[in-house]
Amino acid sequence: MSKSKSAHSALKVQKGINPPQAVNANFIRKAKASRVGVLDLDYYIQGIFKGERKILSQAITLVESAKKEHRILAEQIIEACLPKAQASIRIGITGVPGVGKSTFIEVFGKQLVDQGHRVAVLAIDPSSSKNKGSILGDKTRMEALSTEENAFIRPSPSSGSLGGVAQKTRETISLCEAAGFDIILVETVGVGQSETAVHSMVDFFLLLMLAGAGDELQGIKRGIIEMSDAIFINKADGDNLNKAKISRTQYANALHLFPQPESHWPPVADICSAVTGMGIDKVWTYILDYVNTTKANNFFYVKRQQQELFRFHEQIESKLKHYFFEDKRIIKLLKKAEEALMNNEKSAYQLAEDLMKKWHK
Amino acid sequence: MSKSKSAHSALKVQKGINPPQAVNANFIRKAKASRVGVLDLDYYIQGIFKGERKILSQAITLVESAKKEHRILAEQIIEACLPKAQASIRIGITGVPGVGKSTFIEVFGKQLVDQGHRVAVLAIDPSSSKNKGSILGDKTRMEALSTEENAFIRPSPSSGSLGGVAQKTRETISLCEAAGFDIILVETVGVGQSETAVHSMVDFFLLLMLAGAGDELQGIKRGIIEMSDAIFINKADGDNLNKAKISRTQYANALHLFPQPESHWPPVADICSAVTGMGIDKVWTYILDYVNTTKANNFFYVKRQQQELFRFHEQIESKLKHYFFEDKRIIKLLKKAEEALMNNEKSAYQLAEDLMKKWHK
Repeated sequence: MSKSKSAHSALKVQKGINPPQAVNANFIRKAKASRVGVLDLDYYIQGIFKGERKILSQAITLVESAKKEHRILAEQIIEACLPKAQASIRIGITGVPGVGKSTFIEVFGKQLVDQGHRVAVLAIDPSSSKNKGSILGDKTRMEALSTEENAFIRPSPSSGSLGGVAQKTRETISLCEAAGFDIILVETVGVGQSETAVHSMVDFFLLLMLAGAGDELQGIKRGIIEMSDAIFINKADGDNLNKAKISRTQYANALHLFPQPESHWPPVADICSAVTGMGIDKVWTYILDYVNTTKANNFFYVKRQQQELFRFHEQIESKLKHYFFEDKRIIKLLKKAEEALMNNEKSAYQLAEDLMKKWHK
Repeated sequence: MSKSKSAHSALKVQKGINPPQAVNANFIRKAKASRVGVLDLDYYIQGIFKGERKILSQAITLVESAKKEHRILAEQIIEACLPKAQASIRIGITGVPGVGKSTFIEVFGKQLVDQGHRVAVLAIDPSSSKNKGSILGDKTRMEALSTEENAFIRPSPSSGSLGGVAQKTRETISLCEAAGFDIILVETVGVGQSETAVHSMVDFFLLLMLAGAGDELQGIKRGIIEMSDAIFINKADGDNLNKAKISRTQYANALHLFPQPESHWPPVADICSAVTGMGIDKVWTYILDYVNTTKANNFFYVKRQQQELFRFHEQIESKLKHYFFEDKRIIKLLKKAEEALMNNEKSAYQLAEDLMKKWHK
């Protein structure tokens, strides 16, 4: 036990070492006082309904805030927005870094805006929670699209667990829809867990791939391919065109091996180039066909209702935590329990069980 | 509202369409009756303490089980194991698919076993929860290591959210340590979220990279590089050797740009080849140096205590959910609330709030 004791005294001495973020409830509670001024509910709702992008942005900042009073206001705003948040098409777009997602979304989004749509671009990227972008630095993103009156671009929520980030993105979708954006593009980084989260909030799921790079190097899992409604081989231009065509055939063949999807709309594989613009219009043609088919067979609405169920369970889980960790008695008990843990008086399991018993009676 | 009504009737008609897994509380509660026979606590504890791999495996299966009675027994086993679960070195190993993690771990693990260590290899791979491996199929993994008496290899828990998978891996580490494994290798897929989870349960974090492939294509985020204690450029053999040496210099330079780590042990960049064996012994040399340095300056123990705090909060969050979703009154209320949601009687937010109020009073 002498090792544990020295560890404890070390904890007391080395104040410079910060505990992991998710650990310290005090840290979470005191988290960054947001810069958002809390205005009237009516200000936000009216502004959003008028499609004012500035007020929409402010409301999203409230949604992303960790402060309790912001959260309560945000919840009221979302509730008011929900009835208006239906007439839209929600599209998830994924692919590994380097596949050209930003350029694709820029060109695709511009095309939709030119056709008279209002397009919102959101992102889920939990891995950016600590540090944004790659070590080589981020490129400037979607310059042309961001200047369009009918486009709205919002990067990832800047903190939180994947669950938290996903929940905030789901709520942001509702706000954007209430603000009159009829096409929502949700970008994700394409390497695993976050795709499932995006899949739980979009109607159509588009996977961008590179020709010839091989699944393994691209880090694309079978599960992601299975949940895709369309696979587009991007960068199908110049010397790369033939390779892209071969990849298209390979993916088309692979897709045939999967069971019939629940949507009854067989997924497609095709090629495009965000640089030359080739094939980008076909993406939209496929999506419209998907939407028409799944609205006719009701899958579109069933999926959205399942997503509402998902939202409900997400809400329950986050409220469970809020009720618990914001309870004044629990805050005190938790502090004592953490001390007992550091002093090796009891195990994490016993202490957690003790807390639950005290909470629930 | 007519659309919603048709959606609702569709939900009733199209029974073939399954709700997303995380949605349906009934689904979760009824989840797969496990094949594990529940034996005496003593059977597991004595077996683990004797280092019997078969019983260790059975205990881990209990840890991974979704059944309530398994969970309660598993918790008792872990509690009994915790005091014995300290004298080890826990190493996280990450890198994108294709970097050669399995081959590396095979060679590295064999080397450690030959030196008299007992080595456990665990994996965290949340993206495998639906379908394992890439579309091209998994290779046979770690054949040589798996036949060693003093090695124990356990793949990812096969289901659950990232949080759940991480928690189960943390608990599996404790069981392996109590069974006398003094080196724990935790493999992860290297593309984002799961690294943070692994980082919260290991002493040393090793990042494997490929020469020349570029950060972007490798999908490695700055945040992952920042949390690494060592970066090894793997596949440094044949024609690739010179490229690997150049990469080593580049990463070494990049590492210098980061602030002094809390461990006070400056991260290293080096090269290795799991195929020729070159450099693999240096990995262990670095790790021993890290352990000696951080035990001397106490960081090693401080970090482990922080990880215990992490475990405690993880326990609280999962117990909150168990207490709630397994409560008989809540099960009934939840069913009614889901029906109300499907009938558009109230929003997910109102219904969640109602449930909380009923739960907490």
